[in-house]
Amino acid sequence: MQKQKDDFHNSPLGGTATGNSIKILAPATIANLVCGFDVLGLALNYPRDEMHLTLNKEPGIRLRHTDIYNLSNVPEQNVAGVSLLELMQELNNNCGFELIINKHIKPGSGLGSSAASAAGSVVAANHLLGNIFSKEDLVRFAMAGEKLASGVKHADNISPCIYGGVTLIRSIFPLDIISLPAPAMFVAVVHPQIEVKTSDAREILRKEVLLKDAIKQWGNIAGLVAGFMKNDYALISRSLEDVIIEPVRSMLIPGFDDVKKRSVEAGALGGGISGSGPSIFMLCEKESTAKKVEKIMKDVYENTGLLYNTYVTTINNEGIVVSSE
Amino acid sequence: MQKQKDDFHNSPLGGTATGNSIKILAPATIANLVCGFDVLGLALNYPRDEMHLTLNKEPGIRLRHTDIYNLSNVPEQNVAGVSLLELMQELNNNCGFELIINKHIKPGSGLGSSAASAAGSVVAANHLLGNIFSKEDLVRFAMAGEKLASGVKHADNISPCIYGGVTLIRSIFPLDIISLPAPAMFVAVVHPQIEVKTSDAREILRKEVLLKDAIKQWGNIAGLVAGFMKNDYALISRSLEDVIIEPVRSMLIPGFDDVKKRSVEAGALGGGISGSGPSIFMLCEKESTAKKVEKIMKDVYENTGLLYNTYVTTINNEGIVVSSE
Repeated sequence: MQKQKDDFHNSPLGGTATGNSIKILAPATIANLVCGFDVLGLALNYPRDEMHLTLNKEPGIRLRHTDIYNLSNVPEQNVAGVSLLELMQELNNNCGFELIINKHIKPGSGLGSSAASAAGSVVAANHLLGNIFSKEDLVRFAMAGEKLASGVKHADNISPCIYGGVTLIRSIFPLDIISLPAPAMFVAVVHPQIEVKTSDAREILRKEVLLKDAIKQWGNIAGLVAGFMKNDYALISRSLEDVIIEPVRSMLIPGFDDVKKRSVEAGALGGGISGSGPSIFMLCEKESTAKKVEKIMKDVYENTGLLYNTYVTTINNEGIVVSSE
Repeated sequence: MQKQKDDFHNSPLGGTATGNSIKILAPATIANLVCGFDVLGLALNYPRDEMHLTLNKEPGIRLRHTDIYNLSNVPEQNVAGVSLLELMQELNNNCGFELIINKHIKPGSGLGSSAASAAGSVVAANHLLGNIFSKEDLVRFAMAGEKLASGVKHADNISPCIYGGVTLIRSIFPLDIISLPAPAMFVAVVHPQIEVKTSDAREILRKEVLLKDAIKQWGNIAGLVAGFMKNDYALISRSLEDVIIEPVRSMLIPGFDDVKKRSVEAGALGGGISGSGPSIFMLCEKESTAKKVEKIMKDVYENTGLLYNTYVTTINNEGIVVSSE
């Protein structure tokens, strides 16, 4: 937490922030970035949730959705609400918030929908309160939302959502977030509309893994980090391999192997399951390749009878941004 | 292999290299760099083996040692000899080599003694042959020596020995070696003179590890690589943690816990077991800290009754160098 907090505590509602409103855009994110299960994530430029937050003198949180997803409007049962409550516990005053959420990141898509709500609410609140909290504080608050959504406090969606770009969560307790430089990349995404619950996707994993596989995995994540930092697309491509999680979880996603094999043949650097699925992403150096990959994704799912949607986007380096005040 | 090889094949002894002699210095190395078991290694400026190689018209390898270690002079039973033989298999001519080895890196110390012999012999030969092989080829040849020494083809000593600095071996089959930039560091080393056989040190490891530990480990190696590339000593320090190998292997090294705990308290960034032991190394940002750590090492082993030696050195960024021709 930053030093300003004490100054804030001396004024009833954070000084100039009283009664202010803000609109923010919170990006979709890809967690479990191939060999970086539980530790690497990145932010996307599309889709993004819109959130409108007003700081009130009346205590408490009122929230509502203008989207179609029927999420709870009860703060204690809503990831954005829970995250705001977590933040408010560290405020020594009786302010309140009114939050209007217009989600574009479909819940259950594996693209960090809950993280966008959780992170968006606290980033917006922090802005209205005069930026009294550090980014790390905000991640901490938003993890309460992730816990509500998935049962586990994880930060690999929230961190890229707040910091932008590629982030490494070296450790959760204590929190240690590292922003990693990475070259420009295009990202092709397909969301086959089947349900994969995060909790199920966790249970399917073995509690133990072979040491030789773990060694392969940490060789790959080391290569991936080096590839990002050296702008070495070939090294990134060679390192985008997950020998532990993907072989198990990909069984939950019909079409996965086909999409991946054909995408790599078409020139994608590599990719995998976004978060715990069901969305699949492929990283590409060129936009033209990403568009080819998107066609492959359409082709694969056109033949399955599943509902699906696809798009091509880029890495979002800004994280959550203020859209208007 | 580089293109010149074909030209070389057209001349009986590699053109101008006939009858030449060379002296090289091959550095000690630290493999299994904390969280980088089997994939990360670094080269040291001290100690270094001296090797004197002569290219002859007479076929075959003759080798002898001028050191005190009673290693075999039979090429097929000597890591340098075996590595040279591996290289010669890819030469289409009947040249021969005379090799004189003066080892300063004590065999069995865990500081890449066999790697220095293996790598030194083929780097020297390549120089005399007009640099017809790539560094990667040389690693491949020297791995035959490592296999003789430890039963396993591994490259995490050979690679830093040949490339210098910190190297990542992302994969052995196919070979994928990445040089990592790293900030200047001082290295305090203690070699308690007990025997830890590499094969025993391997057998003590469990074949399976907890997924949650593996995740911690790949978070740490990702942090360590990022720390090296960002010149971020604090991040390097936080990432120098091995939750999988060290807790098991350190039991083989009396005094390990004491050395490590007190070194970190004295300001060392972190460290661990060098290779499969018994040497222990500690990385330090400042020379004064490394000297404090060396004192701690002496203090710990002074009380054990074990023979030991200690020194402070730095990272060797050149790898094997030609000393004279």
